[in-house]
Amino acid sequence: MSTKDADREQGNAFLPRFDAQGLAGAIVQDETTGEVLMFAFMDQEALDATRATGFAHFHSRSRGKLWKKGETSGHLLEVKAMLVDCDQDAFVLKVRPHGPACHTGERSCFYRRLGPDGLTRLD
Amino acid sequence: MSTKDADREQGNAFLPRFDAQGLAGAIVQDETTGEVLMFAFMDQEALDATRATGFAHFHSRSRGKLWKKGETSGHLLEVKAMLVDCDQDAFVLKVRPHGPACHTGERSCFYRRLGPDGLTRLD
Repeated sequence: MSTKDADREQGNAFLPRFDAQGLAGAIVQDETTGEVLMFAFMDQEALDATRATGFAHFHSRSRGKLWKKGETSGHLLEVKAMLVDCDQDAFVLKVRPHGPACHTGERSCFYRRLGPDGLTRLD
Repeated sequence: MSTKDADREQGNAFLPRFDAQGLAGAIVQDETTGEVLMFAFMDQEALDATRATGFAHFHSRSRGKLWKKGETSGHLLEVKAMLVDCDQDAFVLKVRPHGPACHTGERSCFYRRLGPDGLTRLD
């Protein structure tokens, strides 16, 4: 392991690592219930905007641009804490959601369970 | 929205969507505590192996191959349930971990919190 990799894992410096597409994974978790609400990607711009404003911003891969979650719907995600993983290429955003996190109106995007024969909607 | 997209969001058919690299995001969550333990990617092969065995498999981007989590360490992740998101390009694996999920020996890979001045280790 290089010194830089060791620093990334054990140190206190924030050294985010973006992939070849300039992205890191961002897991959104309800700070109160622990429920995983959604998953999206962040680039440096989205990360900076999130830290500067306290509201979750992502990089939309389909639109190829910065995406402030809830900008249109008002369903913002207020970031209460942000965790970083060992190799600093994924984040957990602990949030207070200002409405459903999913564009379908569901509280969480993960509203179906996979079984042997397909998907079942959760209660 | 195309019919296929609507089916993906509202239907019961499992229609996983992999990105240009053939990958989908996989969030590992402790089924008991709700703690997010790690994040990795799955390709079709990893997804099939996970479903067939009941233990988490991922695609290692650095090694470019199938990776059975814990194959060497014994720290397997026993998958108790798998959730699928609205557009079916991300999964939550609810697991019973057979040891620390992180290769550093931490229970979770997300053992540090981001603050204005860098990272702080969680208790």
